[in-house]
Amino acid sequence: KINSERLWDSLMEMAKVGPGVAGGCNRQTLTDEDAEGRKLFQKWCEEAGMTMGVDAMGTMFMTREGTDPEALPVYVGSHLDTQPTGGKYDGVLGVLGALEAVRTMNDLGIKTKHPIVVTNWANEEGARFAPAMLASGVFAGKHTMDYAYARTDLEGKTYGEELERIGWKGNEEVGARKMHAYYELHIEQGPILEAEGKDIGVVTHCQGLWWLEFTLTGKEAHTGSTPMAMRTNAGLAMARILEMVQEVAMDHQPNAVGGVGQMQFNPNSRNVLPGTVVFTVDIRTPSIEKLTSMRSQIEERAAAICDEIGVGCSVEPVGHFDPVTFTPELVSNVRNAAEKLGYSHMDIVSGAGHDACWAAAVAPTTMIMCPCVDGLSHNEAEDITPEWAAAGTDVLMHAVLETAEI
Amino acid sequence: KINSERLWDSLMEMAKVGPGVAGGCNRQTLTDEDAEGRKLFQKWCEEAGMTMGVDAMGTMFMTREGTDPEALPVYVGSHLDTQPTGGKYDGVLGVLGALEAVRTMNDLGIKTKHPIVVTNWANEEGARFAPAMLASGVFAGKHTMDYAYARTDLEGKTYGEELERIGWKGNEEVGARKMHAYYELHIEQGPILEAEGKDIGVVTHCQGLWWLEFTLTGKEAHTGSTPMAMRTNAGLAMARILEMVQEVAMDHQPNAVGGVGQMQFNPNSRNVLPGTVVFTVDIRTPSIEKLTSMRSQIEERAAAICDEIGVGCSVEPVGHFDPVTFTPELVSNVRNAAEKLGYSHMDIVSGAGHDACWAAAVAPTTMIMCPCVDGLSHNEAEDITPEWAAAGTDVLMHAVLETAEI
Ligand SMILES: NC(=O)NCCC(=O)O
Ligand SMILES: NC(=O)NCCC(=O)O
Repeated sequence: KINSERLWDSLMEMAKVGPGVAGGCNRQTLTDEDAEGRKLFQKWCEEAGMTMGVDAMGTMFMTREGTDPEALPVYVGSHLDTQPTGGKYDGVLGVLGALEAVRTMNDLGIKTKHPIVVTNWANEEGARFAPAMLASGVFAGKHTMDYAYARTDLEGKTYGEELERIGWKGNEEVGARKMHAYYELHIEQGPILEAEGKDIGVVTHCQGLWWLEFTLTGKEAHTGSTPMAMRTNAGLAMARILEMVQEVAMDHQPNAVGGVGQMQFNPNSRNVLPGTVVFTVDIRTPSIEKLTSMRSQIEERAAAICDEIGVGCSVEPVGHFDPVTFTPELVSNVRNAAEKLGYSHMDIVSGAGHDACWAAAVAPTTMIMCPCVDGLSHNEAEDITPEWAAAGTDVLMHAVLETAEI
Repeated sequence: KINSERLWDSLMEMAKVGPGVAGGCNRQTLTDEDAEGRKLFQKWCEEAGMTMGVDAMGTMFMTREGTDPEALPVYVGSHLDTQPTGGKYDGVLGVLGALEAVRTMNDLGIKTKHPIVVTNWANEEGARFAPAMLASGVFAGKHTMDYAYARTDLEGKTYGEELERIGWKGNEEVGARKMHAYYELHIEQGPILEAEGKDIGVVTHCQGLWWLEFTLTGKEAHTGSTPMAMRTNAGLAMARILEMVQEVAMDHQPNAVGGVGQMQFNPNSRNVLPGTVVFTVDIRTPSIEKLTSMRSQIEERAAAICDEIGVGCSVEPVGHFDPVTFTPELVSNVRNAAEKLGYSHMDIVSGAGHDACWAAAVAPTTMIMCPCVDGLSHNEAEDITPEWAAAGTDVLMHAVLETAEI
């Protein structure tokens, strides 16, 4: 078993880098705080005997040598960047859990045939530079380097500039590394494991996603002096579309979700009917057929809703990944490890997107999840227990050892 | 008839003070631009032989003497303050139209028994310091001075401080003046007159209003990893409430409106279901019974909608005025003036709130409306024709002369 106290201490230490305003973290990608977190992680890895490689997207690869010089490495990681008002565990647990597994192997003198590479993917959150999972996406060939470097933050700074500025632009070609396998431990970010009282989520799939950004164009008009019959009310069209998205998601049960997190009325004044309403529909399901069906139903029905009240409707996809089936052999390793260690477990589908979703395109891949309090994430109040962190990391270590071969 | 060219020149001259970014104006209340606009208006009035009084709310009263020292004045005015992205005519036409009427009387050597007081009410728009129609509300005894002085803008500056800073805090007690009558000319801010091809709106009533600010409390959660059955989706509750407000307004036809102009999702991130959704429902109708019925139906049905999905619902009224019936004798004066001058006209209900709505509580009052292009207002693209402005001002002058007695 891993050293639970050391793991927790490292989590708390890292949380001090880029502290938030309400107990969480603000360590957004390619900020000075990100650079400081990277330095700390590098130091810990080097103290554990690992050597560093950095690719041109800024992803950090920390290698523990294996006994077979021919064997491809087993990659284990997640991300250290956070949301602007992020938690202490989202991503961080996966990186520092991998480090703790290596530290424990060192303590116990365990050697593996395959090297183990503890990985910190750059810009998973996508909060500063959209889209999310940017560096792993380039690694998997889903985005070009030009596209990635040209992503801008709200101040107009580019990913490429900021990566150079913080001094973490590596010289490795992105995606040149070949992986024997990839494992990622992550908090669930949803309420299922806690509700079911399970220590471990054995992740079999990751849902596919579409982000559909709607721009509804109505007619800006005074809320008082514009008769009902003369309104072109984009807010009303929005309301009908939200209800319809709910219906479409319910019609695709089980295992489908749909909702809206981002909404903007313009000019957003109490006595002006909105000229435009902009919002993003987020739909996810593990079934590619369902995902396609949901998207087309939503676009068709939204067009009909808008037509009926004369509102203009344009839809731009601003995020997408197909559903992922994780590698059955690795999934079994995780399930067996939980079983062997006596942790309660259940199969689970990742509701959120993760770097593992892109890694799965280029290597055998799976994930391990541990519960989080109230399913809360992307929130400074995000919380887990030291026991949950330890159980997840124990299972991670045993599954990795299975694949890396003692 | 009034001098149409001089009126238009003055409108264009005033529009240069606090110009907007898209052809309109940004001359918000108690800004340096407001002070500059007031100076220009004061100069024009003094050139026309009027003398100034200013009350402690900053409202400007410019008096043209009458022939009977005992006769109470006829007040004529509107407001010179604008929205941040406001038009050139909303309010301004009413003030400069009143000035033009006096200039024309001077040209023609017309004397009246009653003095005429051209009035520029402070903070009609309520854009910088809510609520709207603040100074006329204090004048009519609807708000206290303490309440009004304590209103803050987004930077936390108070009305009282800013009024002193720009140097327009007068020494007259607010509301001490007694009015023989009050007339206000205003653009319609809605599409009816233009659609009906009428030059003049004879305003018989003003709708009553409630602004109901809803705060819906859901549970912040990941859009991907939170199953449909475990959501407490405040966005869905909002959508149902918007549809319900539309239904309630339609059920109260004719002459009732309901809609939403202001909407805020928190934290407003694509992959987070909102923790809170805050929006303001604006309902208006000329019937007090309908207004009461709409409000209670909306609050009752919203509570039921939220209960059903477990969303918290609180409602705070943030604006209100009862429906107003303007003084029949003054309304007849307006209709007769339009008739006599050969302008096409129709009776109309003011959809927007105006200083006249508060003045009506303390004096015989009515309004005159002229069309505006596409009913557009609270928008820099707000537009009228010189002919519409002239027709409205002609009718204003003739109606005022009827009441002020030649
Ligand atoms: N894990 C995570 O929240 N990633 C961001 C992308 C997503 O919304 O799933
Ligand atoms: N005239 C005008 O738009 N006044 C502001 C208050 C309202 O919304 O009616």
